[in-house]
Amino acid sequence: MARIAVGVDLGGTKIATGAVDDNGTLLARTELPTLAREGPGRVIQRMKESVYGVLQKLGLSLTDIAGIGIGVPGPMDARRGVVKNPPNLPGWDDVPLLSIMQEEFNIRICLENDANAAALGEYLFGAGKGIENFVYITISTGIGGGVIAGGRLLKGDGGNAAEIGHITINFEGPVCGCGNKGCFEAYASGTAMARFAKEGILSGRKTILGNFYQKEEVKAEHIFAAAKEGDEYAMELVEKEGFYLGVGLASVVNAYNPRCIAVGGGLTKAWDMFYPRMIEVMRKRALPVNVERLEVVKATLGPDVGIIGAASLIFQKE
Amino acid sequence: MARIAVGVDLGGTKIATGAVDDNGTLLARTELPTLAREGPGRVIQRMKESVYGVLQKLGLSLTDIAGIGIGVPGPMDARRGVVKNPPNLPGWDDVPLLSIMQEEFNIRICLENDANAAALGEYLFGAGKGIENFVYITISTGIGGGVIAGGRLLKGDGGNAAEIGHITINFEGPVCGCGNKGCFEAYASGTAMARFAKEGILSGRKTILGNFYQKEEVKAEHIFAAAKEGDEYAMELVEKEGFYLGVGLASVVNAYNPRCIAVGGGLTKAWDMFYPRMIEVMRKRALPVNVERLEVVKATLGPDVGIIGAASLIFQKE
Repeated sequence: MARIAVGVDLGGTKIATGAVDDNGTLLARTELPTLAREGPGRVIQRMKESVYGVLQKLGLSLTDIAGIGIGVPGPMDARRGVVKNPPNLPGWDDVPLLSIMQEEFNIRICLENDANAAALGEYLFGAGKGIENFVYITISTGIGGGVIAGGRLLKGDGGNAAEIGHITINFEGPVCGCGNKGCFEAYASGTAMARFAKEGILSGRKTILGNFYQKEEVKAEHIFAAAKEGDEYAMELVEKEGFYLGVGLASVVNAYNPRCIAVGGGLTKAWDMFYPRMIEVMRKRALPVNVERLEVVKATLGPDVGIIGAASLIFQKE
Repeated sequence: MARIAVGVDLGGTKIATGAVDDNGTLLARTELPTLAREGPGRVIQRMKESVYGVLQKLGLSLTDIAGIGIGVPGPMDARRGVVKNPPNLPGWDDVPLLSIMQEEFNIRICLENDANAAALGEYLFGAGKGIENFVYITISTGIGGGVIAGGRLLKGDGGNAAEIGHITINFEGPVCGCGNKGCFEAYASGTAMARFAKEGILSGRKTILGNFYQKEEVKAEHIFAAAKEGDEYAMELVEKEGFYLGVGLASVVNAYNPRCIAVGGGLTKAWDMFYPRMIEVMRKRALPVNVERLEVVKATLGPDVGIIGAASLIFQKE
């Protein structure tokens, strides 16, 4: 019989929880709002409820599952099983989530950074299946990542390795949310794209994006849409996005020498628009030996990567 | 009885070979000139001789040792045991060194990138002893590195992971020897320091370094010496060196989340002169959670780190 694990993906907006078997099949899922403003106590209560909810859907009890994996936003302290102070979870500060959940469920619990868990999920069940040296990158409002090295998740001392979005690509660059200057994320995230667009509009660049900006904030998806319609400034922004992604990937390639990089996150909806430029720049900038065998592909687990990744923590090789 | 391994450190200038026991003690060593211009055949012949020479010094035969570890300059292909085309080994191109040595000695042979081997040596026997998440960086004419993740060497797909010197710190920066722009190495190596100095001298900066430049090339050691004597321009260059090192270390810290970084290489002779600025910049730029427990120290194995690191390949956990 297949082993089953429960995965809990704790986000700033929602708690997504599911039961996953050791083939990576999502058997049941549930979603609750995080309501982060209510503070850690209530949020953790909803996390517990979501686990019981999923078990109930399948008619399972705790003794039927191999464990519960939890993906949390960083920063965290994996050694102590503690969630520190994630920007999108106000009021959290050194919350001992691992021991709280262990006390409730009294089975095996694993806690990891959400992007690291997603990387493990893509490695065990998705785009990285069987590829022992593998990097997963997610590009949406921010940039996150996780690394599989020799078939094992690269965790680092406190579970905060592979903070790929916070590798500097220009030390004189724009200030990043993390406080550093010129992080990969500050150049190539969806948020960064929108910021560049706004700067252009305000400086008087002729673009149909100005219409969006009247009504609402410009978003990355507007930029890709405008570029598709032939808007020159939008096309320039998309070209720049591909360039910055290529620069960042080159550092990733030289840092980890992966066989495959899988890219997930919201921006992959516009994959064909930035992929050629991204690859061109990456190949030009990375060490030739490190791109010879490299493949860069779209991640395959889709929107449930958070749940499947969290559950996969229970199936990982120690 | 202690197990003994032979380590061969193949460099562009010399072949340094030694016998090392499983406490990391160097029992005997020998050195031959590489004479790289004579091509791979002759160089490999000298590597073989050096192994026999070390065994002879100790009165040992091949059956007395656990294996031979070899550290080679990158790029390499670890999967095939092949040395590709290192800049400092002209004429080498896809040399199957692993199988050549296996044929000669018919015992266990390990082949790795020299900086990765050095990292393993420092982890098993030096500054990183017992620290399961550990980074070694060497700063001399270039910048190299190696990473221990969860107690194992981070190798990557082809043995070329942790090319720390070729992480981009400014995508608009000076051209690097690797072809990329703005690599860490292009800003913070001894060679880069000397290049900055020369640029200053040629642009008319008042500095005693101009005297060196009349007689010979300016070297990093001249800059540190001049800074010690109060030369303002040299002091500025040393400050910049600390800054660039701090920027690069911040990316390393966010990429690998190590518990400890050990710094080796020629520039550590001037450790006290760049250390405070380097640490200040690194702490300001890295994710706070990743520097809380971090220590940055000088590497301890000294000039024989190449031999000890190569031998340590035989003692690594698989």
